[in-house]
Amino acid sequence: MNKRPFATFYGVGVGPGDPELMTRKAARILAEVDWIFYPTETRQGTSFSQRIIAPLGLPTAKCQAIYMGMSCDRAADVKTYATVVDDIVAELAQGKSVAWITQGDPLFYSTFIHLYEEMRRRFPEAPIEIIPGVTSTSAAAAMAHVPVSRLQEKVAVVPAVYGLEGLPHLLDEFATVFLMKVNSVFDQLLDTLRCIPYAVHGVYVEKVGTPEERVVTDLETLRGQRLPYFSLVILRKHHEPSGVQ
Amino acid sequence: MNKRPFATFYGVGVGPGDPELMTRKAARILAEVDWIFYPTETRQGTSFSQRIIAPLGLPTAKCQAIYMGMSCDRAADVKTYATVVDDIVAELAQGKSVAWITQGDPLFYSTFIHLYEEMRRRFPEAPIEIIPGVTSTSAAAAMAHVPVSRLQEKVAVVPAVYGLEGLPHLLDEFATVFLMKVNSVFDQLLDTLRCIPYAVHGVYVEKVGTPEERVVTDLETLRGQRLPYFSLVILRKHHEPSGVQ
Repeated sequence: MNKRPFATFYGVGVGPGDPELMTRKAARILAEVDWIFYPTETRQGTSFSQRIIAPLGLPTAKCQAIYMGMSCDRAADVKTYATVVDDIVAELAQGKSVAWITQGDPLFYSTFIHLYEEMRRRFPEAPIEIIPGVTSTSAAAAMAHVPVSRLQEKVAVVPAVYGLEGLPHLLDEFATVFLMKVNSVFDQLLDTLRCIPYAVHGVYVEKVGTPEERVVTDLETLRGQRLPYFSLVILRKHHEPSGVQ
Repeated sequence: MNKRPFATFYGVGVGPGDPELMTRKAARILAEVDWIFYPTETRQGTSFSQRIIAPLGLPTAKCQAIYMGMSCDRAADVKTYATVVDDIVAELAQGKSVAWITQGDPLFYSTFIHLYEEMRRRFPEAPIEIIPGVTSTSAAAAMAHVPVSRLQEKVAVVPAVYGLEGLPHLLDEFATVFLMKVNSVFDQLLDTLRCIPYAVHGVYVEKVGTPEERVVTDLETLRGQRLPYFSLVILRKHHEPSGVQ
Protein backbone atom coordinates (compact mmCIF):
# COMPACT_ATOMS: atom_id res chain seq x y z
CA MET A 1 0.00 0.00 0.00
CA ASN A 2 1.19 3.48 -0.88
CA LYS A 3 2.30 5.19 2.34
CA ARG A 4 3.35 8.40 0.65
CA PRO A 5 1.45 11.34 2.17
CA PHE A 6 -1.26 12.91 0.09
CA ALA A 7 -0.41 16.06 -1.84
CA THR A 8 -2.68 19.06 -1.22
CA PHE A 9 -6.07 19.58 -2.83
CA TYR A 10 -6.73 23.28 -3.44
CA GLY A 11 -10.13 24.88 -3.89
CA VAL A 12 -9.25 28.05 -5.76
CA GLY A 13 -11.67 30.93 -6.27
CA VAL A 14 -10.74 32.77 -9.46
CA GLY A 15 -13.14 35.67 -9.00
CA PRO A 16 -16.26 36.76 -10.83
CA GLY A 17 -15.03 36.83 -14.42
CA ASP A 18 -12.38 39.47 -15.04
CA PRO A 19 -9.01 37.67 -14.93
CA GLU A 20 -7.55 40.71 -13.16
CA LEU A 21 -9.98 40.17 -10.29
CA MET A 22 -8.17 36.93 -9.47
CA THR A 23 -6.05 37.20 -6.34
CA ARG A 24 -2.29 37.02 -6.49
CA LYS A 25 -2.48 33.90 -4.34
CA ALA A 26 -4.82 32.13 -6.76
CA ALA A 27 -2.47 32.93 -9.64
CA ARG A 28 0.53 31.61 -7.68
CA ILE A 29 -1.18 28.39 -6.60
CA LEU A 30 -2.36 27.69 -10.15
CA ALA A 31 1.19 28.15 -11.42
CA GLU A 32 2.58 25.80 -8.74
CA VAL A 33 0.17 22.86 -8.73
CA ASP A 34 0.61 19.72 -10.80
CA TRP A 35 -3.00 19.59 -12.02
CA ILE A 36 -5.79 22.08 -12.59
CA PHE A 37 -9.24 20.54 -12.79
CA TYR A 38 -12.08 22.72 -13.99
CA PRO A 39 -15.77 22.05 -14.44
CA THR A 40 -17.35 22.27 -17.87
CA GLU A 41 -21.00 22.97 -18.40
CA THR A 42 -21.22 21.10 -21.69
CA ARG A 43 -19.69 17.94 -23.09
CA GLN A 44 -17.91 20.14 -25.66
CA GLY A 45 -15.80 21.46 -22.82
CA THR A 46 -16.76 25.15 -22.64
CA SER A 47 -15.94 26.43 -19.18
CA PHE A 48 -16.53 29.79 -17.62
CA SER A 49 -13.84 29.34 -14.99
CA GLN A 50 -11.31 28.08 -17.55
CA ARG A 51 -11.85 31.28 -19.58
CA ILE A 52 -10.96 33.29 -16.48
CA ILE A 53 -7.54 31.65 -16.03
CA ALA A 54 -6.70 31.52 -19.76
CA PRO A 55 -4.66 34.79 -19.67
CA LEU A 56 -2.28 33.21 -17.11
CA GLY A 57 -0.91 31.14 -19.99
CA LEU A 58 -0.54 27.97 -17.93
CA PRO A 59 0.53 24.75 -19.68
CA THR A 60 -2.61 23.19 -21.16
CA ALA A 61 -1.13 19.75 -20.44
CA LYS A 62 -1.81 20.23 -16.73
CA CYS A 63 -5.40 21.43 -17.20
CA GLN A 64 -8.17 18.88 -17.23
CA ALA A 65 -11.84 19.51 -18.04
CA ILE A 66 -14.40 17.69 -15.94
CA TYR A 67 -17.92 17.45 -17.26
CA MET A 68 -20.35 18.48 -14.54
CA GLY A 69 -23.58 18.86 -16.49
CA MET A 70 -26.37 20.40 -14.45
CA SER A 71 -28.65 17.63 -13.38
CA CYS A 72 -31.99 17.65 -11.64
CA ASP A 73 -31.25 14.14 -10.46
CA ARG A 74 -29.68 14.26 -7.02
CA ALA A 75 -28.42 10.66 -7.22
CA ALA A 76 -26.66 11.35 -10.52
CA ASP A 77 -24.96 14.41 -9.06
CA VAL A 78 -23.78 12.48 -6.01
CA LYS A 79 -22.28 9.85 -8.31
CA THR A 80 -20.52 12.56 -10.33
CA TYR A 81 -19.00 14.11 -7.21
CA ALA A 82 -17.81 10.70 -6.01
CA THR A 83 -16.14 9.98 -9.34
CA VAL A 84 -14.44 13.35 -9.51
CA VAL A 85 -13.14 12.92 -5.96
CA ASP A 86 -11.80 9.48 -6.91
CA ASP A 87 -9.93 11.03 -9.83
CA ILE A 88 -8.50 13.83 -7.69
CA VAL A 89 -7.46 11.51 -4.86
CA ALA A 90 -5.72 9.18 -7.31
CA GLU A 91 -3.43 12.11 -8.16
CA LEU A 92 -3.00 13.30 -4.56
CA ALA A 93 -1.99 9.78 -3.54
CA GLN A 94 0.84 9.93 -6.08
CA GLY A 95 2.08 13.18 -4.57
CA LYS A 96 0.54 15.31 -7.32
CA SER A 97 -1.23 18.45 -6.11
CA VAL A 98 -4.58 19.34 -7.67
CA ALA A 99 -6.41 22.67 -7.86
CA TRP A 100 -10.14 22.79 -8.50
CA ILE A 101 -10.97 26.20 -9.92
CA THR A 102 -14.26 27.85 -9.27
CA GLN A 103 -15.80 31.11 -10.44
CA GLY A 104 -16.12 33.64 -7.60
CA ASP A 105 -15.47 32.09 -4.20
CA PRO A 106 -15.18 28.32 -3.60
CA LEU A 107 -17.62 28.26 -0.66
CA PHE A 108 -20.26 30.64 -2.04
CA TYR A 109 -22.78 28.91 -4.33
CA SER A 110 -20.13 26.61 -5.76
CA THR A 111 -19.83 22.99 -6.78
CA PHE A 112 -16.58 22.87 -4.83
CA ILE A 113 -18.59 22.50 -1.61
CA HIS A 114 -19.85 19.09 -2.73
CA LEU A 115 -16.36 17.91 -3.69
CA TYR A 116 -14.97 19.24 -0.41
CA GLU A 117 -17.55 17.40 1.69
CA GLU A 118 -17.19 14.18 -0.28
CA MET A 119 -13.41 14.25 0.12
CA ARG A 120 -13.53 15.16 3.82
CA ARG A 121 -15.90 12.26 4.47
CA ARG A 122 -14.01 9.59 2.57
CA PHE A 123 -10.42 10.82 2.80
CA PRO A 124 -10.14 12.85 6.01
CA GLU A 125 -6.35 12.62 5.84
CA ALA A 126 -6.13 14.52 2.53
CA PRO A 127 -4.89 18.10 3.11
CA ILE A 128 -7.25 20.68 1.66
CA GLU A 129 -6.56 24.40 1.28
CA ILE A 130 -9.23 26.87 0.21
CA ILE A 131 -8.32 30.13 -1.51
CA PRO A 132 -11.14 32.67 -1.23
CA GLY A 133 -12.08 34.80 -4.21
CA VAL A 134 -13.97 37.97 -5.05
CA THR A 135 -17.68 37.09 -5.26
CA SER A 136 -20.07 38.11 -8.02
CA THR A 137 -22.03 40.06 -5.40
CA SER A 138 -19.04 42.26 -4.50
CA ALA A 139 -18.16 42.69 -8.18
CA ALA A 140 -21.72 43.59 -9.14
CA ALA A 141 -22.00 46.18 -6.37
CA ALA A 142 -18.65 47.69 -7.41
CA MET A 143 -19.70 47.81 -11.07
CA ALA A 144 -23.10 49.34 -10.27
CA HIS A 145 -21.77 51.65 -7.52
CA VAL A 146 -24.19 50.36 -4.92
CA PRO A 147 -23.05 50.68 -1.29
CA VAL A 148 -23.68 47.29 0.30
CA SER A 149 -23.35 47.94 4.02
CA ARG A 150 -22.55 50.75 6.38
CA LEU A 151 -21.30 49.74 9.82
CA GLN A 152 -24.68 49.02 11.37
CA GLU A 153 -26.39 47.49 8.32
CA LYS A 154 -27.45 43.94 7.55
CA VAL A 155 -27.02 42.12 4.24
CA ALA A 156 -28.95 39.15 2.86
CA VAL A 157 -28.01 36.95 -0.09
CA VAL A 158 -30.88 34.87 -1.38
CA PRO A 159 -31.38 32.67 -4.45
CA ALA A 160 -34.26 34.46 -6.20
CA VAL A 161 -36.26 31.27 -6.71
CA TYR A 162 -36.46 30.78 -2.94
CA GLY A 163 -36.63 34.39 -1.88
CA LEU A 164 -39.47 36.24 -3.60
CA GLU A 165 -42.20 35.20 -1.20
CA GLY A 166 -40.37 36.62 1.81
CA LEU A 167 -38.94 39.64 -0.01
CA PRO A 168 -41.05 42.38 1.64
CA HIS A 169 -40.01 41.05 5.03
CA LEU A 170 -36.34 40.82 3.97
CA LEU A 171 -36.38 44.43 2.80
CA ASP A 172 -37.76 45.50 6.17
CA GLU A 173 -34.87 43.88 7.99
CA PHE A 174 -31.90 44.08 5.61
CA ALA A 175 -30.37 47.25 4.15
CA THR A 176 -29.24 45.36 1.06
CA VAL A 177 -30.66 42.19 -0.47
CA PHE A 178 -28.87 40.33 -3.25
CA LEU A 179 -31.15 38.12 -5.34
CA MET A 180 -29.05 35.51 -7.12
CA LYS A 181 -29.98 33.85 -10.44
CA VAL A 182 -32.98 36.08 -11.05
CA ASN A 183 -33.42 35.00 -14.66
CA SER A 184 -36.20 32.46 -14.14
CA VAL A 185 -38.39 34.64 -11.88
CA PHE A 186 -37.65 38.14 -13.08
CA ASP A 187 -41.18 39.25 -14.03
CA GLN A 188 -42.50 37.87 -10.76
CA LEU A 189 -39.83 39.93 -8.98
CA LEU A 190 -41.07 43.09 -10.73
CA ASP A 191 -44.61 42.35 -9.54
CA THR A 192 -43.38 41.79 -6.00
CA LEU A 193 -41.42 45.05 -5.98
CA ARG A 194 -44.55 46.97 -7.03
CA CYS A 195 -46.16 45.92 -3.75
CA ILE A 196 -43.34 47.22 -1.53
CA PRO A 197 -44.71 50.33 0.21
CA TYR A 198 -41.48 52.37 0.04
CA ALA A 199 -38.85 53.27 -2.52
CA VAL A 200 -36.38 50.50 -3.29
CA HIS A 201 -33.29 51.08 -5.40
CA GLY A 202 -32.89 48.07 -7.68
CA VAL A 203 -30.02 47.28 -10.04
CA TYR A 204 -29.78 44.32 -12.38
CA VAL A 205 -26.30 43.01 -13.22
CA GLU A 206 -25.45 40.19 -15.60
CA LYS A 207 -22.19 38.42 -16.43
CA VAL A 208 -20.24 40.81 -14.22
CA GLY A 209 -16.52 40.98 -14.90
CA THR A 210 -16.83 39.57 -18.42
CA PRO A 211 -16.73 41.48 -21.72
CA GLU A 212 -20.51 40.92 -21.96
CA GLU A 213 -21.33 42.42 -18.57
CA ARG A 214 -24.42 44.63 -18.36
CA VAL A 215 -25.88 46.88 -15.67
CA VAL A 216 -29.54 47.93 -15.89
CA THR A 217 -31.02 50.39 -13.40
CA ASP A 218 -34.58 50.59 -14.76
CA LEU A 219 -35.68 47.07 -13.97
CA GLU A 220 -39.06 47.41 -15.73
CA THR A 221 -37.30 47.66 -19.12
CA LEU A 222 -36.30 44.01 -18.71
CA ARG A 223 -39.86 42.71 -18.32
CA GLY A 224 -40.53 39.74 -20.58
CA GLN A 225 -36.91 39.46 -21.69
CA ARG A 226 -34.91 36.27 -21.74
CA LEU A 227 -32.11 36.71 -19.22
CA PRO A 228 -28.93 34.67 -18.69
CA TYR A 229 -28.16 32.38 -15.75
CA PHE A 230 -25.35 34.59 -14.42
CA SER A 231 -27.65 37.41 -13.38
CA LEU A 232 -28.43 39.05 -10.07
CA VAL A 233 -30.36 41.96 -8.68
CA ILE A 234 -29.21 44.24 -5.86
CA LEU A 235 -32.03 45.79 -3.85
CA ARG A 236 -31.42 48.61 -1.42
CA LYS A 237 -33.85 50.81 0.44
CA HIS A 238 -33.73 54.50 -0.38
CA HIS A 239 -34.74 55.37 3.16
CA GLU A 240 -35.26 53.34 6.27
CA PRO A 241 -38.99 53.02 6.93
CA SER A 242 -39.67 54.65 10.28
CA GLY A 243 -39.73 52.33 13.25
CA VAL A 244 -37.69 49.61 11.55
CA GLN A 245 -34.19 48.74 12.86
CA MET B 1 -11.06 78.34 -13.48
CA ASN B 2 -9.41 75.01 -14.05
CA LYS B 3 -11.20 73.30 -16.93
CA ARG B 4 -8.95 70.26 -16.99
CA PRO B 5 -11.06 67.10 -16.55
CA PHE B 6 -10.84 65.36 -13.20
CA ALA B 7 -8.53 62.40 -12.89
CA THR B 8 -10.10 59.18 -11.56
CA PHE B 9 -10.77 58.43 -7.91
CA TYR B 10 -10.35 54.71 -7.18
CA GLY B 11 -11.86 52.84 -4.28
CA VAL B 12 -9.54 49.84 -4.01
CA GLY B 13 -10.32 46.79 -1.90
CA VAL B 14 -7.05 45.18 -0.82
CA GLY B 15 -8.58 42.06 0.68
CA PRO B 16 -8.87 40.80 4.24
CA GLY B 17 -5.26 40.98 5.40
CA ASP B 18 -2.95 38.61 3.53
CA PRO B 19 -1.20 40.71 0.85
CA GLU B 20 -1.51 37.73 -1.51
CA LEU B 21 -5.29 37.92 -1.26
CA MET B 22 -5.18 41.27 -3.05
CA THR B 23 -6.40 41.05 -6.64
CA ARG B 24 -4.07 41.54 -9.56
CA LYS B 25 -6.19 44.54 -10.54
CA ALA B 26 -5.78 46.21 -7.13
CA ALA B 27 -2.01 45.75 -7.34
CA ARG B 28 -1.93 47.24 -10.85
CA ILE B 29 -4.09 50.26 -9.98
CA LEU B 30 -1.99 51.00 -6.89
CA ALA B 31 1.17 50.91 -9.02
CA GLU B 32 -0.37 53.24 -11.62
CA VAL B 33 -2.07 55.96 -9.54
CA ASP B 34 -0.42 59.22 -8.52
CA TRP B 35 -1.58 59.08 -4.91
CA ILE B 36 -2.54 56.38 -2.44
CA PHE B 37 -4.56 57.63 0.52
CA TYR B 38 -5.08 55.26 3.41
CA PRO B 39 -6.97 55.62 6.66
CA THR B 40 -5.13 55.43 9.97
CA GLU B 41 -6.78 54.43 13.18
CA THR B 42 -4.44 56.42 15.40
CA ARG B 43 -2.69 59.75 15.13
CA GLN B 44 0.60 57.83 15.12
CA GLY B 45 -0.32 56.58 11.68
CA THR B 46 -0.71 52.84 12.18
CA SER B 47 -2.89 51.47 9.42
CA PHE B 48 -4.19 47.98 8.81
CA SER B 49 -4.73 48.56 5.10
CA GLN B 50 -1.31 50.14 4.67
CA ARG B 51 0.29 47.00 6.16
CA ILE B 52 -1.51 44.94 3.51
CA ILE B 53 0.00 46.85 0.58
CA ALA B 54 3.49 47.21 2.12
CA PRO B 55 4.90 44.14 0.30
CA LEU B 56 4.11 45.80 -3.06
CA GLY B 57 7.07 48.11 -2.36
CA LEU B 58 5.36 51.20 -3.74
CA PRO B 59 7.11 54.59 -3.41
CA THR B 60 6.31 55.93 0.06
CA ALA B 61 6.29 59.45 -1.40
CA LYS B 62 2.96 58.76 -3.09
CA CYS B 63 1.33 57.26 0.01
CA GLN B 64 -0.50 59.57 2.38
CA ALA B 65 -1.97 58.66 5.77
CA ILE B 66 -5.35 60.16 6.65
CA TYR B 67 -6.36 60.14 10.28
CA MET B 68 -9.90 58.79 10.54
CA GLY B 69 -10.22 58.22 14.26
CA MET B 70 -13.34 56.33 15.24
CA SER B 71 -15.79 58.85 16.55
CA CYS B 72 -19.16 58.45 18.19
CA ASP B 73 -20.00 61.96 17.05
CA ARG B 74 -21.80 61.81 13.74
CA ALA B 75 -21.22 65.51 13.02
CA ALA B 76 -17.46 65.15 13.55
CA ASP B 77 -17.38 62.17 11.17
CA VAL B 78 -19.29 64.08 8.50
CA LYS B 79 -16.80 66.93 8.77
CA THR B 80 -13.88 64.48 8.45
CA TYR B 81 -15.35 62.92 5.31
CA ALA B 82 -15.92 66.37 3.78
CA THR B 83 -12.32 67.41 4.48
CA VAL B 84 -10.89 64.19 3.06
CA VAL B 85 -13.00 64.57 -0.07
CA ASP B 86 -11.75 68.15 -0.44
CA ASP B 87 -8.17 66.91 -0.26
CA ILE B 88 -8.81 64.15 -2.80
CA VAL B 89 -10.67 66.41 -5.22
CA ALA B 90 -7.87 69.00 -5.07
CA GLU B 91 -5.58 66.32 -6.52
CA LEU B 92 -8.11 65.01 -9.05
CA ALA B 93 -8.65 68.57 -10.33
CA GLN B 94 -4.92 68.79 -11.11
CA GLY B 95 -5.13 65.60 -13.13
CA LYS B 96 -3.64 63.44 -10.36
CA SER B 97 -5.38 60.13 -9.80
CA VAL B 98 -6.02 59.01 -6.23
CA ALA B 99 -6.66 55.54 -4.79
CA TRP B 100 -8.35 55.13 -1.43
CA ILE B 101 -7.40 51.71 -0.06
CA THR B 102 -9.72 49.75 2.10
CA GLN B 103 -9.40 46.44 3.89
CA GLY B 104 -11.63 43.78 2.35
CA ASP B 105 -14.12 45.21 -0.12
CA PRO B 106 -14.77 48.97 -0.53
CA LEU B 107 -18.57 48.69 -0.33
CA PHE B 108 -18.81 46.16 2.51
CA TYR B 109 -18.60 47.77 5.97
CA SER B 110 -16.09 50.32 4.80
CA THR B 111 -15.43 54.02 5.32
CA PHE B 112 -15.07 54.33 1.56
CA ILE B 113 -18.87 54.37 1.28
CA HIS B 114 -19.02 57.71 3.10
CA LEU B 115 -16.30 59.23 0.93
CA TYR B 116 -17.99 57.89 -2.19
CA GLU B 117 -21.36 59.41 -1.30
CA GLU B 118 -19.85 62.72 -0.27
CA MET B 119 -17.93 62.98 -3.54
CA ARG B 120 -20.89 61.88 -5.68
CA ARG B 121 -23.07 64.53 -4.06
CA ARG B 122 -20.66 67.45 -4.32
CA PHE B 123 -18.61 66.51 -7.38
CA PRO B 124 -20.85 64.38 -9.60
CA GLU B 125 -18.50 64.94 -12.54
CA ALA B 126 -15.54 63.22 -10.83
CA PRO B 127 -14.96 59.75 -12.33
CA ILE B 128 -14.96 57.03 -9.69
CA GLU B 129 -13.93 53.41 -10.18
CA ILE B 130 -14.44 50.77 -7.52
CA ILE B 131 -12.23 47.67 -7.37
CA PRO B 132 -13.90 44.89 -5.39
CA GLY B 133 -11.88 42.81 -2.95
CA VAL B 134 -12.04 39.52 -1.07
CA THR B 135 -14.15 40.09 2.06
CA SER B 136 -13.25 39.00 5.57
CA THR B 137 -16.35 36.77 5.50
CA SER B 138 -15.11 34.81 2.48
CA ALA B 139 -11.61 34.61 3.94
CA ALA B 140 -12.86 33.45 7.34
CA ALA B 141 -15.01 30.72 5.79
CA ALA B 142 -12.07 29.56 3.66
CA MET B 143 -9.76 29.51 6.66
CA ALA B 144 -12.27 27.65 8.85
CA HIS B 145 -13.48 25.33 6.06
CA VAL B 146 -17.12 26.31 6.51
CA PRO B 147 -19.33 25.93 3.42
CA VAL B 148 -21.27 29.18 3.13
CA SER B 149 -24.00 28.40 0.63
CA ARG B 150 -25.17 25.56 -1.54
CA LEU B 151 -27.29 26.52 -4.54
CA GLN B 152 -30.60 26.89 -2.72
CA GLU B 153 -29.29 28.38 0.52
CA LYS B 154 -29.60 31.87 1.98
CA VAL B 155 -26.85 33.86 3.69
CA ALA B 156 -27.13 36.71 6.19
CA VAL B 157 -24.40 39.12 7.29
CA VAL B 158 -25.24 40.99 10.45
CA PRO B 159 -23.26 43.28 12.78
CA ALA B 160 -23.39 41.32 16.04
CA VAL B 161 -24.45 44.35 18.09
CA TYR B 162 -27.63 44.64 16.03
CA GLY B 163 -28.28 40.98 15.37
CA LEU B 164 -28.40 38.98 18.60
CA GLU B 165 -32.03 39.65 19.42
CA GLY B 166 -33.25 38.30 16.09
CA LEU B 167 -30.68 35.48 15.89
CA PRO B 168 -33.00 32.50 16.49
CA HIS B 169 -35.22 33.75 13.68
CA LEU B 170 -32.24 34.36 11.37
CA LEU B 171 -30.99 30.82 11.96
CA ASP B 172 -34.42 29.48 11.01
CA GLU B 173 -34.33 31.24 7.69
CA PHE B 174 -30.64 31.44 6.70
CA ALA B 175 -28.30 28.48 6.20
CA THR B 176 -25.31 30.59 7.22
CA VAL B 177 -25.20 33.69 9.41
CA PHE B 178 -22.08 35.82 9.71
CA LEU B 179 -21.94 37.90 12.88
CA MET B 180 -19.49 40.77 12.37
CA LYS B 181 -17.54 42.49 15.15
CA VAL B 182 -18.60 40.03 17.83
CA ASN B 183 -16.06 41.23 20.39
CA SER B 184 -18.34 43.49 22.42
CA VAL B 185 -21.25 41.04 22.73
CA PHE B 186 -19.54 37.66 22.70
CA ASP B 187 -20.77 36.30 26.04
CA GLN B 188 -24.29 37.43 25.22
CA LEU B 189 -23.97 35.51 21.93
CA LEU B 190 -23.02 32.36 23.84
CA ASP B 191 -26.12 32.73 26.00
CA THR B 192 -28.30 33.24 22.93
CA LEU B 193 -26.87 30.15 21.21
CA ARG B 194 -27.71 28.02 24.26
CA CYS B 195 -31.38 28.78 23.64
CA ILE B 196 -31.40 27.64 20.00
CA PRO B 197 -33.33 24.35 19.92
CA TYR B 198 -31.11 22.62 17.35
CA ALA B 199 -27.43 22.04 16.74
CA VAL B 200 -25.59 25.05 15.33
CA HIS B 201 -22.03 24.83 14.06
CA GLY B 202 -20.21 27.95 15.23
CA VAL B 203 -16.70 29.09 14.36
CA TYR B 204 -14.93 32.17 15.70
CA VAL B 205 -12.32 33.80 13.45
CA GLU B 206 -10.16 36.81 14.32
CA LYS B 207 -7.73 38.87 12.25
CA VAL B 208 -8.15 36.56 9.27
CA GLY B 209 -5.39 36.74 6.69
CA THR B 210 -2.88 38.28 9.09
CA PRO B 211 0.01 36.53 10.89
CA GLU B 212 -2.09 36.78 14.09
CA GLU B 213 -5.16 35.06 12.67
CA ARG B 214 -6.96 32.60 14.92
CA VAL B 215 -9.78 30.09 14.41
CA VAL B 216 -11.67 28.74 17.42
CA THR B 217 -14.33 26.07 17.03
CA ASP B 218 -15.31 25.61 20.67
CA LEU B 219 -16.90 28.99 21.26
CA GLU B 220 -17.43 28.42 25.00
CA THR B 221 -13.66 28.47 25.59
CA LEU B 222 -13.73 32.17 24.70
CA ARG B 223 -16.24 33.15 27.39
CA GLY B 224 -15.07 36.14 29.40
CA GLN B 225 -12.09 36.78 27.15
CA ARG B 226 -11.14 40.14 25.73
CA LEU B 227 -11.49 39.83 21.94
CA PRO B 228 -10.22 42.13 19.18
CA TYR B 229 -12.33 44.35 16.92
CA PHE B 230 -11.56 42.33 13.77
CA SER B 231 -13.48 39.28 14.89
CA LEU B 232 -16.45 37.43 13.46
CA VAL B 233 -18.46 34.30 14.06
CA ILE B 234 -19.85 32.01 11.36
CA LEU B 235 -22.98 30.13 12.36
CA ARG B 236 -24.32 27.28 10.30
CA LYS B 237 -27.05 24.79 11.07
CA HIS B 238 -26.01 21.16 11.30
CA HIS B 239 -29.39 20.03 10.03
CA GLU B 240 -32.35 21.89 8.69
CA PRO B 241 -35.11 21.89 11.29
CA SER B 242 -38.05 20.05 9.78
CA GLY B 243 -40.63 22.19 8.08
CA VAL B 244 -38.30 25.15 7.57
CA GLN B 245 -37.30 26.19 4.03
